[in-house]
Amino acid sequence: MSLLTLLTDFGLDDYFVAAVKGTVLRLAPGVAVIDISHGVPAGDVPTAAFLLGAAWSAFPRGAVHLAIVDPGVGSERRILAAELDGSFFVAPDNGLLTPILEGSSVRQVTRRELFLDGPSETFHGRDRFAPVAAHLLRGEPFQELGPTIADPLKLDLERPSREDGEIRGSVVHIDRFGNLVTNIPSGWLPGRPFEAQIDGRSVTAFATHYDQLVTGQPGILPGSVGTLEISLRGADLAARWGIRRGADVRILMS
Amino acid sequence: MSLLTLLTDFGLDDYFVAAVKGTVLRLAPGVAVIDISHGVPAGDVPTAAFLLGAAWSAFPRGAVHLAIVDPGVGSERRILAAELDGSFFVAPDNGLLTPILEGSSVRQVTRRELFLDGPSETFHGRDRFAPVAAHLLRGEPFQELGPTIADPLKLDLERPSREDGEIRGSVVHIDRFGNLVTNIPSGWLPGRPFEAQIDGRSVTAFATHYDQLVTGQPGILPGSVGTLEISLRGADLAARWGIRRGADVRILMS
Amino acid sequence: MSLLTLLTDFGLDDYFVAAVKGTVLRLAPGVAVIDISHGVPAGDVPTAAFLLGAAWSAFPRGAVHLAIVDPGVGSERRILAAELDGSFFVAPDNGLLTPILEGSSVRQVTRRELFLDGPSETFHGRDRFAPVAAHLLRGEPFQELGPTIADPLKLDLERPSREDGEIRGSVVHIDRFGNLVTNIPSGWLPGRPFEAQIDGRSVTAFATHYDQLVTGQPGILPGSVGTLEISLRGADLAARWGIRRGADVRILMS
Repeated sequence: MSLLTLLTDFGLDDYFVAAVKGTVLRLAPGVAVIDISHGVPAGDVPTAAFLLGAAWSAFPRGAVHLAIVDPGVGSERRILAAELDGSFFVAPDNGLLTPILEGSSVRQVTRRELFLDGPSETFHGRDRFAPVAAHLLRGEPFQELGPTIADPLKLDLERPSREDGEIRGSVVHIDRFGNLVTNIPSGWLPGRPFEAQIDGRSVTAFATHYDQLVTGQPGILPGSVGTLEISLRGADLAARWGIRRGADVRILMS
Repeated sequence: MSLLTLLTDFGLDDYFVAAVKGTVLRLAPGVAVIDISHGVPAGDVPTAAFLLGAAWSAFPRGAVHLAIVDPGVGSERRILAAELDGSFFVAPDNGLLTPILEGSSVRQVTRRELFLDGPSETFHGRDRFAPVAAHLLRGEPFQELGPTIADPLKLDLERPSREDGEIRGSVVHIDRFGNLVTNIPSGWLPGRPFEAQIDGRSVTAFATHYDQLVTGQPGILPGSVGTLEISLRGADLAARWGIRRGADVRILMS
Repeated sequence: MSLLTLLTDFGLDDYFVAAVKGTVLRLAPGVAVIDISHGVPAGDVPTAAFLLGAAWSAFPRGAVHLAIVDPGVGSERRILAAELDGSFFVAPDNGLLTPILEGSSVRQVTRRELFLDGPSETFHGRDRFAPVAAHLLRGEPFQELGPTIADPLKLDLERPSREDGEIRGSVVHIDRFGNLVTNIPSGWLPGRPFEAQIDGRSVTAFATHYDQLVTGQPGILPGSVGTLEISLRGADLAARWGIRRGADVRILMS
């Protein structure tokens, strides 16, 4: 059975997600559909990119990952399809595919015969992206979608650095529990005392899991995407401290 | 594979949606289930009708569309099943099926042997609607559900009008992005200057897609259900202006 | 087709639910996945237990019910698998399985070869629970998961009582519509006048369905899980009265 994942900023209350799924199922019967998230804030491409990067590799090879956060819908922005390790991705060319570009083959979708005649230029999710995904889900050739391109848009993601006993990174995601997910690889934190600083606050505790934290005392843990996160046991730390994505994180070794 | 869509006001936090799906899968194994929405405000039949009308035709012919927004659960209100172009609909008789009644064959479900003995009269979604949908999903005859009726309840939807260079309509939906979806067919807006008025505010810009709008200046666009919508680029216009469903819209040609 | 249900406190915005589903589908291709809820408040095991107990029996025999509300993730808390009437359950040993323990065969999952090497100890949903569920969904033996245990953790659920014309119980759930679901069996309310008291308020009306209630006057109904509930027609009674789970309910016969 072919497998589609779907990631959008459409929310779950409106008819948008259903219209995309219905169109895919009409054009590629029998496909299984799994949601990644439809709770991406409207137009928030970096959050969508983070979620796609965190989720896609759990799925079986051959899945088609359709990601639609597309403030430029209807404009001249390109529609992209990519292949990586036997899995496929379809998304607007706005940086959403950043986490999977390395090693991917990327094509611009120019095969307009696939597109549906919609009543407007405002819902390419249903009228263009869904039929492109259906093409791949029917097992039709990736190569037919359009020419290979070398210049897909990439988000300018901040990269962590380390030198002279100091690590610098940033918060790249606030998770559902209010944990602060950083871009600092978990392996960078050595087994000796440290002081992490974020927004004028200090964190010195380390744990391998949340239950190991002392209540009321924030700590750093190796998190589920392979990077460090800062957490407060049983509490929403991001809300408590008012931290948002992008906040700087410094870790000083002592 | 048989396909069920599900549209309710049950929300996603409680066990209600799962109980309906589980019952369908118990009675009609192997069915694929796709959510339209469970975020309909409690008891809001017009919103459910809008979403059903907007979503259903994207799905393959033969799908069964189960819609349960049913403040009259347990009362004498009828349960309806309808067939249109080879697709099926099951819903309470409260106007929810309004958008698909034209051209449909409508039956009152009187075949009580299908109903399950529930512990109460408060959850017909699980105990009555689910087994009726399962009957259709198993491919059993639509005709067996009960007699044809000619008087299903219809919502008294406001219709747009135009005369003497003036179009009158109303906002029939606020979408997930805060766009104001009207009931005015996109084709009614001629290619000449106009002034739209809504709640004392004036809109004179036109665009074919959101990205074409000038930031900060609201505009009118042909929308994804074939009617005009009013939008503010990158912003939630409904919240900004405090517009709700039902607001009057006038468009004056100059 | 094998059927998985999923119940978590992961919410729907983040990548967590998708990572669990993707892992199951990678390890047990072709499984159908149905959500029970992902809206359990973070770490709220009693709510998860209520939802599991209310939903699971609607599903076909043989389904695998995976429930992950796991504030102790990464700690020494056990992972449990249970079998009841041919259906299976996988959950942390924290009381979540309380509603299905009676009559179940319960095993501690000790077969660590099933576990995946994750980058952390913070996401057992993906790295441990998902592969255990996949094992069962592939039809592999329940017995292989680990030894039978006799001491799974049980929530200390409050039980209703009745004597001398007085029933005592409590609110065990606030449903999506704001109805107060009690733990008092519907059959306990005799067909004679009564006065229910909750938080200093009095309820004397009875109805079999919501539409039968008089607007503005709260009443008691037999609810969808077989217990009494207190409801206010067309309104969110829990919000109106400020009632929360755990509130005491007394019913006096006159």
